[in-house]
Amino acid sequence: VTTYRLVYWPSIPGRGEFPRLLLEDAGVPYVDVAREEPDGVKAILSTLRTPGADAPLAPPILEIDGVRFAQSALLCHLLGQLLDRVPAGAESRALQLQLTVADLVDEVHDTHHPIASGLRYEDQRDEAARRAEDFRSRRLPKFLGYLEGLSGDRDTILPEGFSYVDLSLFHLLAGLRFAFPEAMASLADRTPGLDRIAAAVRARPRVAAYLASPRRVPFSDGIFRHYPELDGAVSP
Amino acid sequence: VTTYRLVYWPSIPGRGEFPRLLLEDAGVPYVDVAREEPDGVKAILSTLRTPGADAPLAPPILEIDGVRFAQSALLCHLLGQLLDRVPAGAESRALQLQLTVADLVDEVHDTHHPIASGLRYEDQRDEAARRAEDFRSRRLPKFLGYLEGLSGDRDTILPEGFSYVDLSLFHLLAGLRFAFPEAMASLADRTPGLDRIAAAVRARPRVAAYLASPRRVPFSDGIFRHYPELDGAVSP
Repeated sequence: VTTYRLVYWPSIPGRGEFPRLLLEDAGVPYVDVAREEPDGVKAILSTLRTPGADAPLAPPILEIDGVRFAQSALLCHLLGQLLDRVPAGAESRALQLQLTVADLVDEVHDTHHPIASGLRYEDQRDEAARRAEDFRSRRLPKFLGYLEGLSGDRDTILPEGFSYVDLSLFHLLAGLRFAFPEAMASLADRTPGLDRIAAAVRARPRVAAYLASPRRVPFSDGIFRHYPELDGAVSP
Repeated sequence: VTTYRLVYWPSIPGRGEFPRLLLEDAGVPYVDVAREEPDGVKAILSTLRTPGADAPLAPPILEIDGVRFAQSALLCHLLGQLLDRVPAGAESRALQLQLTVADLVDEVHDTHHPIASGLRYEDQRDEAARRAEDFRSRRLPKFLGYLEGLSGDRDTILPEGFSYVDLSLFHLLAGLRFAFPEAMASLADRTPGLDRIAAAVRARPRVAAYLASPRRVPFSDGIFRHYPELDGAVSP
């Protein structure tokens, strides 16, 4: 039996939610290390600092049978194949789309931290306002339009069927609606296909059970953050 | 015979250089589409706008036997396997490191475009100065220290042997030295392993021939840019 240990900041969904959703949807046992240890951050630092050819740079980290891997898209790619959450023959396409989701997540992060991830938001508010305006008006519609264009009239993003990318799109939309409710409301009529995919994900029994459990940590002050001053309706 | 068509902005090395180096090192024929067409940018837009399940969001794009793929790290992952530029069994680790290189490249881009990729540098100079200072003092040493720590006393980053990640590290260091000569000079004694890997890459016959050819486009106003005001020595 393959063992899975997920290592990610315990108080936020963040990038760890992408592999976590995949583990939950597959229904396999896994240890959510930093949430189960008394000192989660200490457990993360210990995982990061243990030397070795598998040393990671940053969370999320997934230990598969004791070997560490990092980079959220790679974790999804590996778990997708191990847990049958990607159609055979569509592995590369799924990874491409997951990497595109990851790029958008990076840009979401930088709306509130455009200067330095090590500084507080309050220390880069003016720059954040400028970056968020560009994000809402230009980058967000571009990414969503691209993903919507792939969705066709299916309830999966890949023509080959369900994949972990559907789980990721569900989480992405949830995070975007938390962080940018006004912008997303103004774009609602541009994402019918993505909404259909997200609804199909929410209807999956293990996902529904997970979302109703305390294991689904609410959005707060992580990558997806709501600052009203960074939000606003997008012009048509 | 597999056909390869690379589609990337013709005047800069940028992210297209990662798959291009791999094609050059393998010595396989490929079409560098935007450089061989009379109007390279038009060829890129045409490739982007052609509908289909393989529609990409952005360059670099690689057409493998007529099917489009995007995301530079995925292109390296696919070419690495097709062209035997990654050791068997090390595919996931190589992809993890390539994704880490790609993250650093994104941060390099944002040193001169911290607010909006659609605006000119001159429209975001103040923000760029703040971001570049954080990049030089905190992010760059963190990434380089991580990669150096993996290099051991080998001339390949992976213990299993040569991979496309070595090619990517060579290009990354070259770009960093172009963009941030003072910062990189002040960090020189921290990267002996990475320098050894880059030297081994430069000594590969097909790489050396490529670097001496007009196909190697010099750094200019792409992702790796030199603005003296964004550079500076890093404190020990």
